[in-house]
Amino acid sequence: MIKIDADRLLGDLRRLSEFGKYETGVDRTAFSAEDIAARQWLAGRMEEAGLTPQFDRYGTVLGRSGKGGKAVLLGSHTDTVPRGGWLDGALGVIYGLEVARALAEAGSDAAIDVISFQDEEGTFLPCLGSKSFCGFLEEAELAAGARADGLPLASVLPLEGMPDRLVTLDPARHVAFLEAHIEQGPRLITTDIGLGLVTGIVGIRRFRISASGEANHAGTTPMSMRKDAGASLIRLAAELLEKMPEWGTAESVWNIGAIEFRPGAPNVVPAEASLVFEYRDLSDAVIARVEAKMREAVAAREAADPVTYAIAPMGKVDPLAMDPGLQAAFAATAERLDYRFMTMPSGAGHDAMIVGKCVPAMMMFVPSIGGRSHDVTENTADSDLIRGCEYLANATNDLFASGWVAGRG
Amino acid sequence: MIKIDADRLLGDLRRLSEFGKYETGVDRTAFSAEDIAARQWLAGRMEEAGLTPQFDRYGTVLGRSGKGGKAVLLGSHTDTVPRGGWLDGALGVIYGLEVARALAEAGSDAAIDVISFQDEEGTFLPCLGSKSFCGFLEEAELAAGARADGLPLASVLPLEGMPDRLVTLDPARHVAFLEAHIEQGPRLITTDIGLGLVTGIVGIRRFRISASGEANHAGTTPMSMRKDAGASLIRLAAELLEKMPEWGTAESVWNIGAIEFRPGAPNVVPAEASLVFEYRDLSDAVIARVEAKMREAVAAREAADPVTYAIAPMGKVDPLAMDPGLQAAFAATAERLDYRFMTMPSGAGHDAMIVGKCVPAMMMFVPSIGGRSHDVTENTADSDLIRGCEYLANATNDLFASGWVAGRG
Repeated sequence: MIKIDADRLLGDLRRLSEFGKYETGVDRTAFSAEDIAARQWLAGRMEEAGLTPQFDRYGTVLGRSGKGGKAVLLGSHTDTVPRGGWLDGALGVIYGLEVARALAEAGSDAAIDVISFQDEEGTFLPCLGSKSFCGFLEEAELAAGARADGLPLASVLPLEGMPDRLVTLDPARHVAFLEAHIEQGPRLITTDIGLGLVTGIVGIRRFRISASGEANHAGTTPMSMRKDAGASLIRLAAELLEKMPEWGTAESVWNIGAIEFRPGAPNVVPAEASLVFEYRDLSDAVIARVEAKMREAVAAREAADPVTYAIAPMGKVDPLAMDPGLQAAFAATAERLDYRFMTMPSGAGHDAMIVGKCVPAMMMFVPSIGGRSHDVTENTADSDLIRGCEYLANATNDLFASGWVAGRG
Repeated sequence: MIKIDADRLLGDLRRLSEFGKYETGVDRTAFSAEDIAARQWLAGRMEEAGLTPQFDRYGTVLGRSGKGGKAVLLGSHTDTVPRGGWLDGALGVIYGLEVARALAEAGSDAAIDVISFQDEEGTFLPCLGSKSFCGFLEEAELAAGARADGLPLASVLPLEGMPDRLVTLDPARHVAFLEAHIEQGPRLITTDIGLGLVTGIVGIRRFRISASGEANHAGTTPMSMRKDAGASLIRLAAELLEKMPEWGTAESVWNIGAIEFRPGAPNVVPAEASLVFEYRDLSDAVIARVEAKMREAVAAREAADPVTYAIAPMGKVDPLAMDPGLQAAFAATAERLDYRFMTMPSGAGHDAMIVGKCVPAMMMFVPSIGGRSHDVTENTADSDLIRGCEYLANATNDLFASGWVAGRG
């Protein structure tokens, strides 16, 4: 059984949270001064752990083990959303660092590389670092990258003190990517299970559905003469909510998070009405079925009401299953060492969604108190932080010890 | 049969529309320089018609006939909404002026007073002029009067060149108030009937219905653990729309004109959701029944969903029936002179709603092309404008000729 240094783990997490500290959380958006300072501190901790830190032009930092042969890559991202939590991606990075240290201290020959990708949160470009690492970043996407206030990504490059090179996946070396994260939901905390083994990262479809009718005086226009975009959209929205349990699966989630009527006056029949409908599932087939059913419902509503509809796709993320072999190996470690766990999809995106397209990837979750994340109140009990890292160290060690790593490629 | 001067009528309407002309409409909000200039021009036309114009401190202008005895008051308002139409209240004022001229020219002894009330449109205070005229204006309401941009009513008073007095209803003299207006709806134009005789002005109830739940990540929070204020409100809104035909009557109208989810992000379960629901009907009993049913539906929704609801009244206008004797008299004139007409409620508020609380009131409508109003595209065919005024002159004359006026009071 691999032992970790709990004080060192918690100390590093707490030290990292000082960079961009905001109330009880952290405001450390990608490319901010706090973000770059945190990455420089991290590079120092990597060196102290015997890893060779390599920065790239975006600020992604890879701590490369001196050990040769096949390596397992652990990590996540140290950038945060504005006014975010102290754990989030930082947890996966510091877990990676501690696993590398713990295995080295245990006398293991395992090659453990550790990485903190840049801008997973999409301050300028979501998963910029992991996309670049895997060679997925296209010129057009880079050119379009911009902050919400319009500041282009190009304006913050080149980054002072960073080399003009890219850190990239080494297919001959990196045989797996392991990413730990807080759950960002309430399943573990409400069931009092300390460990979530992720089955896959859900795909997301997001659509703006808009109805167009005619603005009219809501006092003087008889009901039968209206072209009420708002009333039609409300009926459609109620149908979507009613039917989704049937169109999706027990694992599907969906949301109508935004809705707007125009002109929006109490005494004017809405001329325009729109909502944003999104849903998530692990299965491509389910995702396609829901979209088809949604389009049928919109067409039926348009046929029934004196309004016209438009459907604008707003975003599309394909689902990514975690590697079946890694899922089995992680479950075996948990069972062998008697860690209670549950399997669950990840409802949010992560760097593993990108890296997992190139090499086998696996994610694990620790509980989020109150299910909260992306907020200064985000937190996890120290005992859960320690047990989660101890588990990951053993699961990683088992990948080498069992011959899983040697058997790859 | 009383004859009017069609060229004089149309000429006055067109001249009045030059004050604050905006595209094909008029922007002549209450207390603006254009509004005051229009009222001064109107006073001049009143004098030319043999009426004595009397301004009051708000700019309401009453043209008082030199004839003694019981009088009928005709008019409306010459202020407009921003970027409004050229007819609206101006029609009722110029109709009154032309009726006074036509009856005088026909040798009638009828005392016809004509009025243009201030700020019917509520730039600072809805129906300010008619409320003041009837003595309904309270100090608190006056003190609270303000423009949408915050400018207080008090800051535009006293009005330059206006006397510091009020023009008020003379109960011994004014036995009826007659207000002509464009329909502001599509009933007349779509049935090709030139004249609407108004049965009453509908009452209005308006409520903001708000649901409170909990914001959660829409990817990581299982459906069963959400407190989705948006989904609950959509279900409620669909129920209100479905049930209203049953709760109301064939004459009722209703609208959900505004809706909002907060925080309003596609991937966040709405913590707060609210809508504005309004409905209108002529009957106090129907108005009360709908409110009771609406409250039951909200309570049932609150019991079914993990959210809490609040209902905030936003406005309340009581219905006002037109005087039954005047309705009968107006119908008799139309039948005698073979004017096709339909009876209908007014779905919008008017000065007659205020003045009708003090003296018998009656309204008539002419067709609105496309049902449009409060917009620069508002218009009525010249032939409809002429016939409407001719009808009103005869209906007014008949009130005197039939002894209705003499029989009052």
